[in-house]
Amino acid sequence: MKVLAIGAAGMVGRKLCERLAKDGKLGGKPVSALHMVDVVAPSVAGAAFAVTGEAADISKPDLAPRLIAARPDVIFHLAAIVSGEAELDFDKGYAINLDGTRHLLDAVRAENLKAGGAYRPRFVFTSSVAVFGAPFPDGIHDDFHLTPLTSYGAQKAIGELLLSDYTRKGFVDGVGIRLPTICVRPGKPNAAASGFFSNIIREPLVGQKAILPVPETVRHTHATPRAAVGFLLHAATIDGEKVGPRRNLTMPGVSVTVGEQIEALRRVAGEKAVALIERKPDEMISRIVSGWPEKFVAQRAKDLGFAAETSFDEIIRTHIQDELGGKVA
Amino acid sequence: MKVLAIGAAGMVGRKLCERLAKDGKLGGKPVSALHMVDVVAPSVAGAAFAVTGEAADISKPDLAPRLIAARPDVIFHLAAIVSGEAELDFDKGYAINLDGTRHLLDAVRAENLKAGGAYRPRFVFTSSVAVFGAPFPDGIHDDFHLTPLTSYGAQKAIGELLLSDYTRKGFVDGVGIRLPTICVRPGKPNAAASGFFSNIIREPLVGQKAILPVPETVRHTHATPRAAVGFLLHAATIDGEKVGPRRNLTMPGVSVTVGEQIEALRRVAGEKAVALIERKPDEMISRIVSGWPEKFVAQRAKDLGFAAETSFDEIIRTHIQDELGGKVA
Repeated sequence: MKVLAIGAAGMVGRKLCERLAKDGKLGGKPVSALHMVDVVAPSVAGAAFAVTGEAADISKPDLAPRLIAARPDVIFHLAAIVSGEAELDFDKGYAINLDGTRHLLDAVRAENLKAGGAYRPRFVFTSSVAVFGAPFPDGIHDDFHLTPLTSYGAQKAIGELLLSDYTRKGFVDGVGIRLPTICVRPGKPNAAASGFFSNIIREPLVGQKAILPVPETVRHTHATPRAAVGFLLHAATIDGEKVGPRRNLTMPGVSVTVGEQIEALRRVAGEKAVALIERKPDEMISRIVSGWPEKFVAQRAKDLGFAAETSFDEIIRTHIQDELGGKVA
Repeated sequence: MKVLAIGAAGMVGRKLCERLAKDGKLGGKPVSALHMVDVVAPSVAGAAFAVTGEAADISKPDLAPRLIAARPDVIFHLAAIVSGEAELDFDKGYAINLDGTRHLLDAVRAENLKAGGAYRPRFVFTSSVAVFGAPFPDGIHDDFHLTPLTSYGAQKAIGELLLSDYTRKGFVDGVGIRLPTICVRPGKPNAAASGFFSNIIREPLVGQKAILPVPETVRHTHATPRAAVGFLLHAATIDGEKVGPRRNLTMPGVSVTVGEQIEALRRVAGEKAVALIERKPDEMISRIVSGWPEKFVAQRAKDLGFAAETSFDEIIRTHIQDELGGKVA
């Protein structure tokens, strides 16, 4: 089984490739080769199969045909200009997030037509809950419309429509997964408006202070990096017939308030950790966050076997296992 | 007020231009110029303002910048490869329906940036209820998701997302309207699967036989060409602030069963007309039609003042007035 991973140097992409290297197989079938692409050449250690990496730009029309000419059986498309950057650089966002995705699908279609329909790879597209835009119902159900309020969200929603249509026409076998906010995000605190959801857990667990810029009543949905990799692997191997014509799925997650996040931290790591959270209200961040979805029903994904954590305690414990070697400072 | 109409030679586009020529104004302001574009050069008679027409292809990237350089105040974008053709010619459908729309929006953005934001025209985009795909709830509400089951529907849904995003960014002032099936469609019976909805009214009204290929229980939503022109004119002049960030609206219409259509025909034109309808079940047409939406709530559009006919009797009477000089054969 040949795997192509685009956007393989990002946080989730890297973890996906590490997992493939460790497992050596996908859906029970041995992986024979993994080709990784990103703006910087990605690499992964410890694989028993052939691994290659290259730095490339998917907005360039000649890249996708070359990548697809190798006829990968599974394509993971995780490459994207993220929300903030796509908002600041309109052209770059559309070039990578829309044109890049379309180049890939068109290259698959060309190869499909060349093979008389015999080449029809699974194409896993990472979409985002940014396809949704306020105002929202209490829980966002699977047939709620997509009215994105960012260019990134619009580009992801367009990618979803292309994925569905190219799948319906038989050119590709696509599955799109809308990832919730990934938490606990490893690494350093960053400037993203959503950063505090992870910061207030990750930093106290290593004895560092963290800033909480919003009220504890703010509700949001989370899944760990490990759950995100699980979504990707399941999306790569699930029976397309079972998914049916609606190829884009909202992934499950744990919907909690910030207050509930903090209570979970108290249960898992004690008062000492909680004491490191410093409340410093930020009106701009509060306003941005107030436009974000709070809770997803994600019934279809659950029925199709996509599984996230079931409590925020579990999210914290997963982070401690995967990033801190099982130990809390 | 300068008006640009793209797709001006189609049935609705032609009626729109005729109406502009007759009214001489739009939203109370005098029209100073109308430029019409289509694959064949459109023309309209009787206007008191400057009228020009040209044959051109919106999939060519150099056309849109030239059209927009004239800085029209209102742009009507009706050009499209229709459903059946877009299904047969995948590349052509995407070239016109997606790339063509994007070229226009990008040209407006370029002109907007050149003018330091001062040029921000109203852009009326004709979308379609083909953005929806079965299975449906009883009445399709305004926040029902778009899961098109044709390439045409996917291309229109993508156009809607682009329109919203370019509007949100302040490059254009877009309003997208999802037209229901236009009935009674003037002209000759055609091969479209939806043709019978009009045929069974139009043909008997002029003493001709018409074939009914589906059961009388089939339900569908209709609006006249006159209502469609009304939607376009209202979309061109409505206060964008009132529309808000969700710029794409499902238009209202009359939801009736075929049986109710026939009863209306009986009331308006008598038994003699009804007797000209010949039942000839066609399984393929029945199957296609069974995947189509039956009924729209269209509450937002109604609240915003978009008005269709309120009964099928009124639809038939409008056809008799507009197409038959008020007389029934």
